[in-house]
Amino acid sequence: MRGLQGGEWRPGEAIPSELELAARFRVSQGTVRKAIDELAAENLLVRRQGKGTFVATHNEEKIQYRFLRLQPEDGMPPLRMQRQFLDCRRLRAPSDVARALDLRAGDTVVQIRRTLSQSGVAVVLDDIWLPGSLFKGLTAERLSEYRGPLYSLFESEFGVRMIRAEEKIRAVVADEATAVVLSVQAGAPLLSVERLSMTYGDKPVELRRGLYNTHGHHYRNELS
Amino acid sequence: MRGLQGGEWRPGEAIPSELELAARFRVSQGTVRKAIDELAAENLLVRRQGKGTFVATHNEEKIQYRFLRLQPEDGMPPLRMQRQFLDCRRLRAPSDVARALDLRAGDTVVQIRRTLSQSGVAVVLDDIWLPGSLFKGLTAERLSEYRGPLYSLFESEFGVRMIRAEEKIRAVVADEATAVVLSVQAGAPLLSVERLSMTYGDKPVELRRGLYNTHGHHYRNELS
Repeated sequence: MRGLQGGEWRPGEAIPSELELAARFRVSQGTVRKAIDELAAENLLVRRQGKGTFVATHNEEKIQYRFLRLQPEDGMPPLRMQRQFLDCRRLRAPSDVARALDLRAGDTVVQIRRTLSQSGVAVVLDDIWLPGSLFKGLTAERLSEYRGPLYSLFESEFGVRMIRAEEKIRAVVADEATAVVLSVQAGAPLLSVERLSMTYGDKPVELRRGLYNTHGHHYRNELS
Repeated sequence: MRGLQGGEWRPGEAIPSELELAARFRVSQGTVRKAIDELAAENLLVRRQGKGTFVATHNEEKIQYRFLRLQPEDGMPPLRMQRQFLDCRRLRAPSDVARALDLRAGDTVVQIRRTLSQSGVAVVLDDIWLPGSLFKGLTAERLSEYRGPLYSLFESEFGVRMIRAEEKIRAVVADEATAVVLSVQAGAPLLSVERLSMTYGDKPVELRRGLYNTHGHHYRNELS
């Protein structure tokens, strides 16, 4: 965990073999395997048969939608979202944002507003806040130029890796401005998804307030 | 898994020791331990330090809310729901219900309507459909008499254990009848939570359509 957190082993890279790790930390190979099992169960490491063990990364297509639980209704085309950035600016953290991100009053945050669309119609409107000190040099241009998922940009360009997130989900109604963006009537029901994402050590590094139009989509959850 | 499914070991009961199981299935104790690890990870078995391994049950308070993801807003009193049954009847399965529960057209289902309230105000309105053949003798009286959670009744009285569930979550508006039950205005936004619950072998055994008032509560999800 220290090696991951400190960046000794970076996203996408292989970690040393079990034998090497056992020698380095003076533990048995079984103990190393158990530690790797636990980190793999938490999606921090990925085992590849015959290839070794790698630091997990947000670059892979298959985990691109791990945090986005939106699914099209049965019989609709599969999810393939186009994104558009509407705004990216630095400002002093509003008090609720500062509280959620564990910042001091007056600290700078980067605020991003973007949409995710399917077939040209916006389905998701996201407002995203990031601690300014961790995301120096993040601009609208860099956001627009980057081809991969947002969490992949955060990871590869800023060294900030999202490990887990908590979401609070509510039903709300669209205000006038949101209604225009999401092509619904003012007062239409929307899913409000408030996400707090944590990096290593459970440190909050992103607050995201999403409004989802669930007319042709739903948020999918599995319970066990 | 066969022992659980066939009822050889029933909810709440201890299973045999690792040594006994190893002898019976002619495998090593390590193999038995690994199998128990997997079943414990899926919440089918519960290990109790120094006491043994037990078949998981819905009777325990702490797992009562495992499937109900509703949480009060910060600063509100903790969740302690009172339930009230409004209706329980047998009918021919509507076609969408039959399809979800893998029944034939015309098969009987038990339909239950109930509310969950906090401080006397209904927060959740649930419509529940169960296959009639699995829930013979389930009546409004038995529902009202039973003190524990619904899944505990299903398990102890009907031998039907819910293992996992899938939920589709959407934002909808309250119709007139729902608005009265949930003490909101017609047109108010509500969370629609459609749950399909599966027993062993991924067989669907319950369809549940819930409407949640998320004014003072939210649906909580953890992503990793």
